[in-house]
Amino acid sequence: MTQDHTQSCPIARVLNIFGDNWTWLIIREAFYGASRFKDFERNTGIAKNLLSSRLNLLVDRGIFEKVNIGERGTRFSYKLTPKGKALRTTLYAMLQWGNEHLYGEGEEAVVLRDKKTGKLVRKMSLISEEGQPLEAHEVQVEIGPCAEPEVIQKLERAHIAIEEKKRAAQS
Amino acid sequence: MTQDHTQSCPIARVLNIFGDNWTWLIIREAFYGASRFKDFERNTGIAKNLLSSRLNLLVDRGIFEKVNIGERGTRFSYKLTPKGKALRTTLYAMLQWGNEHLYGEGEEAVVLRDKKTGKLVRKMSLISEEGQPLEAHEVQVEIGPCAEPEVIQKLERAHIAIEEKKRAAQS
Repeated sequence: MTQDHTQSCPIARVLNIFGDNWTWLIIREAFYGASRFKDFERNTGIAKNLLSSRLNLLVDRGIFEKVNIGERGTRFSYKLTPKGKALRTTLYAMLQWGNEHLYGEGEEAVVLRDKKTGKLVRKMSLISEEGQPLEAHEVQVEIGPCAEPEVIQKLERAHIAIEEKKRAAQS
Repeated sequence: MTQDHTQSCPIARVLNIFGDNWTWLIIREAFYGASRFKDFERNTGIAKNLLSSRLNLLVDRGIFEKVNIGERGTRFSYKLTPKGKALRTTLYAMLQWGNEHLYGEGEEAVVLRDKKTGKLVRKMSLISEEGQPLEAHEVQVEIGPCAEPEVIQKLERAHIAIEEKKRAAQS
């Protein structure tokens, strides 16, 4: 697992949980219905000791709930919490990017279908308060209420970098 | 970097590119306006040799374009390609999950704002062909045209697992 990123940034903080790719694959399996240690093991091919440490981390961070389902003795099931279920959006975003840019139309291994219309779902987007999809240029990335100095500096530098690029494109 | 996941699955394939968290942080910096080696180095804190190998991988996979911007001699700039820019959705999905589940309202380091209305953007969603946001229960995850046997088996097992859970919940 790579070293923790200490930056005050939601993406860095997310990545500190998903320290390596196995963690994303475990979450993916949970969405596919896996809940037992042996299911995660079989479906991902992860080593037992790694799986054990990743599951503990995910329980610790409130993404899985560990439930004793043993009628006699202990037998555990790992269930996505609401916080864990909310990761669906990130996984769908990865899936759609992968389908479009790594597979191509008609060559996908897994697709998403709109149950009502029966059509493939091809787009994910930020949504305005009025429920309308927002394009990238309609959204501003901003310093939040608890940004630390390094984030403020970075966004200020980013602004300068973007302005410089615009000037270069115009000249 | 962890071992490549050989599974035929768009998420596993995406993760094979983003072999570790540094790669996501490099992409994040590119969206913030970074384009030079030294910018990526300063803003992420990554070691030079790792940064070099990650940038080469991203150029190789068509996510960055490496451009010689030296007026005399060579001086390189790394620019997101359209394929690279399309990763914005995945990063926004991570950012929003991080804001909601790791920071909490009023404590965010970075936020997204709807330029037109001036309001914070809080939601990302799959969009139907008619341009309407789709909820999780309105979307079906399906075997795609090029699914390999292991994916088909997994989705079939997932279906069984979900049916069993429904029965257990009803009984």
